[in-house]
Amino acid sequence: MKPSIPQGMRDFGAATVRKRHFIFATIRNIFENYGFQPLETPAMETLETLMGKYGEEGDKLIFKVLNNGLNDPKNTAKATAAFENILHGKNDRHLTERALRYDLTIPFARYVAMNYGQLSFPFKRYQIQPVWRADRPQRGRYREFYQCDADVVGSYSLLNEVELAALYADVFKRLSIEVEIKINNRKILAALAEICGGSDSLVDITVAIDKLDKIGLTKVKEELSERGLNMEQVGIIEQYLSIAGSNEEKIAQVKALLGNNEWGKKGIEELEYMINFLPPSVNEQLITDFTLARGLNYYTGTIFEVKAKGVQMGSIGGGGRYDDLTGLFGVPNLPGVGISFGVDRIYDVMEELQLFPADIATGTRVLFFNLGEAESKVAFALMQQLRSNNIPAELYAETAKFDKQFKYAEKKNIPFVVIIGSKEMEAKTCVIKSLQTGVQQTIPQEELTDFKFTV
Amino acid sequence: MKPSIPQGMRDFGAATVRKRHFIFATIRNIFENYGFQPLETPAMETLETLMGKYGEEGDKLIFKVLNNGLNDPKNTAKATAAFENILHGKNDRHLTERALRYDLTIPFARYVAMNYGQLSFPFKRYQIQPVWRADRPQRGRYREFYQCDADVVGSYSLLNEVELAALYADVFKRLSIEVEIKINNRKILAALAEICGGSDSLVDITVAIDKLDKIGLTKVKEELSERGLNMEQVGIIEQYLSIAGSNEEKIAQVKALLGNNEWGKKGIEELEYMINFLPPSVNEQLITDFTLARGLNYYTGTIFEVKAKGVQMGSIGGGGRYDDLTGLFGVPNLPGVGISFGVDRIYDVMEELQLFPADIATGTRVLFFNLGEAESKVAFALMQQLRSNNIPAELYAETAKFDKQFKYAEKKNIPFVVIIGSKEMEAKTCVIKSLQTGVQQTIPQEELTDFKFTV
Repeated sequence: MKPSIPQGMRDFGAATVRKRHFIFATIRNIFENYGFQPLETPAMETLETLMGKYGEEGDKLIFKVLNNGLNDPKNTAKATAAFENILHGKNDRHLTERALRYDLTIPFARYVAMNYGQLSFPFKRYQIQPVWRADRPQRGRYREFYQCDADVVGSYSLLNEVELAALYADVFKRLSIEVEIKINNRKILAALAEICGGSDSLVDITVAIDKLDKIGLTKVKEELSERGLNMEQVGIIEQYLSIAGSNEEKIAQVKALLGNNEWGKKGIEELEYMINFLPPSVNEQLITDFTLARGLNYYTGTIFEVKAKGVQMGSIGGGGRYDDLTGLFGVPNLPGVGISFGVDRIYDVMEELQLFPADIATGTRVLFFNLGEAESKVAFALMQQLRSNNIPAELYAETAKFDKQFKYAEKKNIPFVVIIGSKEMEAKTCVIKSLQTGVQQTIPQEELTDFKFTV
Repeated sequence: MKPSIPQGMRDFGAATVRKRHFIFATIRNIFENYGFQPLETPAMETLETLMGKYGEEGDKLIFKVLNNGLNDPKNTAKATAAFENILHGKNDRHLTERALRYDLTIPFARYVAMNYGQLSFPFKRYQIQPVWRADRPQRGRYREFYQCDADVVGSYSLLNEVELAALYADVFKRLSIEVEIKINNRKILAALAEICGGSDSLVDITVAIDKLDKIGLTKVKEELSERGLNMEQVGIIEQYLSIAGSNEEKIAQVKALLGNNEWGKKGIEELEYMINFLPPSVNEQLITDFTLARGLNYYTGTIFEVKAKGVQMGSIGGGGRYDDLTGLFGVPNLPGVGISFGVDRIYDVMEELQLFPADIATGTRVLFFNLGEAESKVAFALMQQLRSNNIPAELYAETAKFDKQFKYAEKKNIPFVVIIGSKEMEAKTCVIKSLQTGVQQTIPQEELTDFKFTV
């Protein structure tokens, strides 16, 4: 049998795992510094928990898990009826009652609703786990990928938005990625919609605005007219979309346009609060962008999107404020604000801009040569000392010729070899050779633990 | 809708995640120090990769993933035929072609076979990922749990066994768990089988021996007689099972019993090599145990099992040498040796013996009180300094009464609060209060970053 791997899924070898873990560890560290607490939920949720939460298209992309024991005669009748339902696009717990998580937000909401009485609010959690989607695989889109989320729930305070903007800045600074943190506020978009045809047109307007980058202003205006907006309304939207300048200038323009609307006033106030609170080190990266809409319907206040500078790549982070995390699970009116990091894209950005630390892919640092049983015993004892000092080391597994052992070191990118032959045994020394520089030196064995194996 | 979680699966809250990560990080660190390289494989494998690898019982416990798009008319006919097959216990790729991994060994074997040409051997990999089994849930048995494996493949050298024994010792020393590392060799069991009725009886004998702990010697002897062994043969097995004493004494006894058999000789030699090579610090924990059999059929040489001392608990680690990792995937004769760690049980042992570091569950270390907008801006700036020194800190999200903010700190087990009111603003000081000792002190704001927030 020729082995293969399911479409849209990936194996990660050592170098890739190390780089990915570097990203995860950095984000995790900053999450912890900001007082977020880790949560891990199971890969599977009940089908009931997941279905109907992601729209009709989302539902189709959920991976469902087949019940076990279907060939047990006592299950057959029910399973057959269930199968008929499945064929008609209806789920049936006699065939499938579990599914793989599709994102981290719904499992988080389910967790908060289930444990509401035990949690203390505001509740700040982070979660870094894989999700699965039966999307058609394509470049940069996988069926298994990690999400990386931080949310604060149970607080309306704008300080949370301030914190999350600062958190974004800290993470990307630590990763050496220069970014623009775009912010907008859904209340400003709501004001625009209210002025241009009532709040019912909010979805139409955000959908059209979302396309601005792709289709350009003329087409957006055409589309808005087709959706029934009159000349004046389209004119206001055009004015809105052409707002430009520094954050201050943009805010002045949006105030002139929407500042008399109640929603507009509130949204602008919220934006200004954030900008006024944040220190210059964060504000430098903050871009007020009134064309930012974010697809998800549940956002109600501040929205975020992060783009890397100097590289062609979609957003590497996003999020926003919502009013009701857990209503669908019986706990209404729990507001929150959250952000997420797009780890696959962050990885690609860091590869493209060569931002990973140089020594990140180094595994084993020292290879001890194996030149006989007595020699390898001495080598083993010395190696154990290095290992207990957290220097990854290996002893070549067989007694073999120099040549073969050097080749092993080269193939595995091991930067140093330590050689202990009969001569060194007698003199209680060892030879250290750097494979990068070719430099070779002999030192007493007892000084080996003080040697700096730096690359 | 009342939310729930699938049977046999678990949410992990902050304290548990932190403790589990402590275990993972410790094992990962030692794996790296020993020159093992990380590998991550996808949660799903093709059904073909998994089926038929774990015996008939295992096959039944594999979670299969339903294909998407079954209600698409163009799929219906094939899906219906496929469903008939499923009802008869046969898999059919028109209904399910993917499944969740059941262990880490088969995905590893699949990976090695797929990438054989690119890997350099001996190949040392470790893998720490969850697996899924549709087992009936019970105390200590879950449907989702982590496995944690290290394997060396492509080397017959016994140095690998030596390394893995030392690795076990290092990990458990680092976790402060006192252990017995039991070792035996399948070749010795093979010798016993050969002497007692031909190698065909190896399975009968190991099955019977495996039950010794549970049913006692008399019953084991009865069972062996029932399986057709004669008095003399049962007598030899009784002698074998009563071997006792120090490692040296046990080896002397097994030599007398099986030392003339070719398999016996080889197996004893291998055991002796390990014991002679390992330093006393590891040998102290090494227990030669000839009653150790390990269920899995593919082991062919050294076998390991680790038990924690001072606690009633099944094995917390196990492994052994095998001859053929990848034969089923078209790459024959690739030998290897591997061990695994039982993370759930290690967690339980550490809880029971209170071995987790005291500060492991501490999340946020400092809560800055929020006493107004101007005050909170000053607090925010100071807090950012602490965070950049890796001290997890929070600013209370709303301006609120002292009482409320103290309660939040207490509920979240935050050990220190920092208070900056109008008086402190003016004097450029801050009040630090330890909630553990009640001690309160006022220091200049500029000295806050030097303060030791130790618990």
